[in-house]
Amino acid sequence: MFNPELETKKIIQFIQDYFEKCHLGGIVIGISGGKDSAVAAALFTKALGPERVIGVTMPCHSIPEDRNDAIKVADFYHFKLINVDLTNTFDTFHKEVEQLEDFVESEDSNINIKPRLRMSTLYYIAQMVSKKEQKTYIVSGNGNKCEEYVGYFTKGGDSVSDIKLLADFTVEEVIQLGEVLEVPKEVLYKAPSDGISQKTDEDKLGVSYKDIAKVIHGEEVEKEVLDNITKMHNGCAHKFNIPTYRRDENK
Amino acid sequence: MFNPELETKKIIQFIQDYFEKCHLGGIVIGISGGKDSAVAAALFTKALGPERVIGVTMPCHSIPEDRNDAIKVADFYHFKLINVDLTNTFDTFHKEVEQLEDFVESEDSNINIKPRLRMSTLYYIAQMVSKKEQKTYIVSGNGNKCEEYVGYFTKGGDSVSDIKLLADFTVEEVIQLGEVLEVPKEVLYKAPSDGISQKTDEDKLGVSYKDIAKVIHGEEVEKEVLDNITKMHNGCAHKFNIPTYRRDENK
Repeated sequence: MFNPELETKKIIQFIQDYFEKCHLGGIVIGISGGKDSAVAAALFTKALGPERVIGVTMPCHSIPEDRNDAIKVADFYHFKLINVDLTNTFDTFHKEVEQLEDFVESEDSNINIKPRLRMSTLYYIAQMVSKKEQKTYIVSGNGNKCEEYVGYFTKGGDSVSDIKLLADFTVEEVIQLGEVLEVPKEVLYKAPSDGISQKTDEDKLGVSYKDIAKVIHGEEVEKEVLDNITKMHNGCAHKFNIPTYRRDENK
Repeated sequence: MFNPELETKKIIQFIQDYFEKCHLGGIVIGISGGKDSAVAAALFTKALGPERVIGVTMPCHSIPEDRNDAIKVADFYHFKLINVDLTNTFDTFHKEVEQLEDFVESEDSNINIKPRLRMSTLYYIAQMVSKKEQKTYIVSGNGNKCEEYVGYFTKGGDSVSDIKLLADFTVEEVIQLGEVLEVPKEVLYKAPSDGISQKTDEDKLGVSYKDIAKVIHGEEVEKEVLDNITKMHNGCAHKFNIPTYRRDENK
């Protein structure tokens, strides 16, 4: 049985143990305005105190509502929130690639570069703050178990981080942790979306997080749904294991 | 005994098998002007034919010599080389973060964002070419075993890729593969450097690649050198394994 009160306590202990063992200064965390980053930030705030938590919003041609929700979360947990607008950086990059002789506009390219620019920004800020504070700040990864199961993340983007709190919890379980932590309701119950493509995650995936959780837990779902989810799961193996030439395996 | 002729053949076979199995269109590879990317590009060219190899130079406040060496490599193996200058993108990003209330100039931040922007660019181009060719192009990772052993790479930067050819070979062995592949001498025997900090890798590491290879192979080195290399090796564990909360491990 999933016990969100107990898990909350254990995650907080996990954070405190790790930060003490590694003599870390604090955490830098991207705050998207969605529930995963809100729950992770809440956990870090409870574990370390708000003064060791630095939230970052990184709009990039984004809708303003997400930043407003991020501000709500930061205000509620009293951690510092800084804003790095990546719109100009993206546009400058885009102008550069547009000049390529073989340039074609690719929606996939334009969508996926954003989480990569955000990851780059979080690490930039983490090293900057580490220098300032003379203590190491690390970067939080906020993905949940459902996203990881179907590969719904950008390789080299939101999947790159230094500590992961929620990777073992389904979306439903993250919401239950958020209830224990009193995450503002309008954030906790918002339909998950990447804030980039203007569609919800579930629209884009074509399956529901509820069904993904069922498959993870070995519960029954419609055959077609199971097939879709299994196909996504198998199709993302390359995101986890990079095929690498090893001399002994290739005789 | 290391047999570079045999390994060259086996790596070429490894590439052909993987690309066939996954129905891949071709490879996108960052060409730095150094030997690792030259050797990897040579292997892909031999395995797939030059028309399925796209080299990318990505200067970012870089010295022009490196790009000239990259052009030499592309000309020699007859693959296409495209140039995406990241200087303006970096400058635009820097202008954005400079405005932060708590901004401090950090050399670490400025150095590490460059490989991350380069990785982002390679994936941008790979998805763009995939759209154009209607076949998937993937991104090459060019790191060697010595760099990996001491953690001399940027997490979320040059370490993110879709296929790795050289990760099981020391620097000395990569050079021997390069000799078999007839990599232009001025590239193959150039002192390795990141092309960013204007220092050679060995200056920055404080140890030689030869000594790192000895430690990997269990051969004797001076105690102080061994201590340094072991310290680097142990110190980079966090780059490979992200600490992740798992409910069962944290009872």
